[in-house]
Amino acid sequence: MADEENAYSFTTKATKQVTLGNLGADGFKMWRGGRLSEVTLAYESWGTLSDTADNAILIFTGLSPSAHAASSAQDSSPGWWEYMIGPGKAIDTNQFYVVCANTLGGCYGSTGPGSINPDTDQLYGAEFPDVTVEDIASSGYYLMRELGVEKLHAAVGSSMGGMSSIAYAMQYPDDIEYLVSISAATQALPLTIALRSLQREIIRSDPDWNEGRYTSDSKPLVGMSLARKLGLVSYRAADEWNSKFDRSRLPAEKLTGKRFEREFEIENYLEYNAQKFINSFDPNSYLYLSRAMDWFDIAEHGESISDGLSKLKVNKALVVGVTTDILFPSRQQKEIADVMRDTGTNVDYVEIDSVNGHDAFLIDDQHFSPVVKKFLNESIT
Amino acid sequence: MADEENAYSFTTKATKQVTLGNLGADGFKMWRGGRLSEVTLAYESWGTLSDTADNAILIFTGLSPSAHAASSAQDSSPGWWEYMIGPGKAIDTNQFYVVCANTLGGCYGSTGPGSINPDTDQLYGAEFPDVTVEDIASSGYYLMRELGVEKLHAAVGSSMGGMSSIAYAMQYPDDIEYLVSISAATQALPLTIALRSLQREIIRSDPDWNEGRYTSDSKPLVGMSLARKLGLVSYRAADEWNSKFDRSRLPAEKLTGKRFEREFEIENYLEYNAQKFINSFDPNSYLYLSRAMDWFDIAEHGESISDGLSKLKVNKALVVGVTTDILFPSRQQKEIADVMRDTGTNVDYVEIDSVNGHDAFLIDDQHFSPVVKKFLNESIT
Repeated sequence: MADEENAYSFTTKATKQVTLGNLGADGFKMWRGGRLSEVTLAYESWGTLSDTADNAILIFTGLSPSAHAASSAQDSSPGWWEYMIGPGKAIDTNQFYVVCANTLGGCYGSTGPGSINPDTDQLYGAEFPDVTVEDIASSGYYLMRELGVEKLHAAVGSSMGGMSSIAYAMQYPDDIEYLVSISAATQALPLTIALRSLQREIIRSDPDWNEGRYTSDSKPLVGMSLARKLGLVSYRAADEWNSKFDRSRLPAEKLTGKRFEREFEIENYLEYNAQKFINSFDPNSYLYLSRAMDWFDIAEHGESISDGLSKLKVNKALVVGVTTDILFPSRQQKEIADVMRDTGTNVDYVEIDSVNGHDAFLIDDQHFSPVVKKFLNESIT
Repeated sequence: MADEENAYSFTTKATKQVTLGNLGADGFKMWRGGRLSEVTLAYESWGTLSDTADNAILIFTGLSPSAHAASSAQDSSPGWWEYMIGPGKAIDTNQFYVVCANTLGGCYGSTGPGSINPDTDQLYGAEFPDVTVEDIASSGYYLMRELGVEKLHAAVGSSMGGMSSIAYAMQYPDDIEYLVSISAATQALPLTIALRSLQREIIRSDPDWNEGRYTSDSKPLVGMSLARKLGLVSYRAADEWNSKFDRSRLPAEKLTGKRFEREFEIENYLEYNAQKFINSFDPNSYLYLSRAMDWFDIAEHGESISDGLSKLKVNKALVVGVTTDILFPSRQQKEIADVMRDTGTNVDYVEIDSVNGHDAFLIDDQHFSPVVKKFLNESIT
């Protein structure tokens, strides 16, 4: 059983796991219906919680990252947001108690489709209930209470994590002081729904997906690889690839000579990155979290987007967009900021001119660090 | 044998077929090596060739259209460029003898992977030699000679057809007077290579592709459907879909209730269009023609793009780009025009502000007709 339980659950040396004890008799009620009788969240933390528990920052991730956002004494390997989090960095662990959780529905130690359903002793698989951004926000809320935090100093997130941060601030308006949303959206639009729906259909079309009942020996790796490549295409920007790859060909020794096989460096880059990904991510988690982004719509928190965002009570919000993002274009970021302002939230909007597209927040230290640092510094002075 | 021969060859009532008789003893020599001992091209024509054979316009298609660009007495069904071609229209069949051929390597009556190799009496399948844009241009050249035309009045093409038109003018500079290139490129860039490579890999990953040796009962339809959807995503523009679909849901009676199934109208739109496509296009043709676009590079016609375009001797060229095209962005169109001008070609560059993305030329009569009409009118006055 132990092996089976961990089949799709990838943890690192610094991962801590908490089984939420504050859910009540009904367990965790999901936003779209259904419930989980038990929820475990994997998280890492950096810095120290103040005596008054007023310096906590919760970081919500995008679709694929684990809780390992930064290195620590327990795990010195670089985290996915290494440049952003640490002593003296933009999210300054000398000042803040920083927590990053693996998303509910994910596969890095939090309860998700790859977990055992305690009610049946079977893997959830595609029997896991629908996961929404709202559920991810709620699970973060319960986690922070477990960790002794009643009120967040700030929620910070990028991409799906930006949506989760906004959801947190709408769902728990009295329990959060500051909000940072990077490259998110008020609601998913048709192009992004199409791109994600297609990734999911590619995975589901792999015969090894088997309606979600694959085993660790027969995962839908072909579908996962193709879906990841499509994801990568949508995360980056044309000009970055023009300067990085142009029309470079693979060296002769890497060519198979087979018709239609990889011949350009860009094709090799996608293959390399897809292969790195597919054995360390649960296909069902991919499906659930991808769909969660399609569903997210601030307008469902009231009669309209304005209505939803009028629930916010944060002292101030920071909204950041990137000029070359095709997945969550900067005009969607500006929309978030504009509606926040119109509904009475004090908000800074920053548009970053980066070549790195939607993924810029993962890469572009130079542009992102000063913006986040300034906002958080001002939040404590 | 007759059935087998037509398995992947779709012709319409107006299709004429010519087996090129002017190729010489070696047959048709392909640009990247290999040869075809026999080449048949399917075409349709409108208007009448003048006594001096000086009024011929050859239309090169994009990846998927047939020769049926416009309706005629033989076939009254609307063609894929119906608004553009006809008496008094922008490509005026009262003035011009207009020919549109199905692309070499295609599946609408021209020799392609779905044809019988006369040397083996077997379907070519994935044994068909590599097809390039240059080969498509050459086959058009031989076709026009069969039809009594030594010198084109104009070559006109969009997308891959724009590349083919430019290739024609570079390969046969003395045999063409005017050139129209719409939404093409001097060379394929990494993002477009990535998008097309992924479409091809999706088809090749369908077990039914079977290394190109599928039969008409077991075509890789799942792969074709997914590839077509990805193509559609790249052909259209975000804002068009925002206004057309927004976040509309399917009506309840169309929902299957199965997890991850289609729920948004945009998902249904893609499914509808993919289903329309997959039974009328040969998967191997898709692979060959898609790869041809990756390979196209004007710089291979000399030492550089400038060097390649300096071969042109046309009286004038028209280059058209669309503001919302993400596949062949307008800056690539401007590059074509700028380099043409720098290398001594008289050129008009027009950037069209259309919401329809790369597909605008198929749809946006209002913006495209006046631009093409003006250029062609001036070419005969």
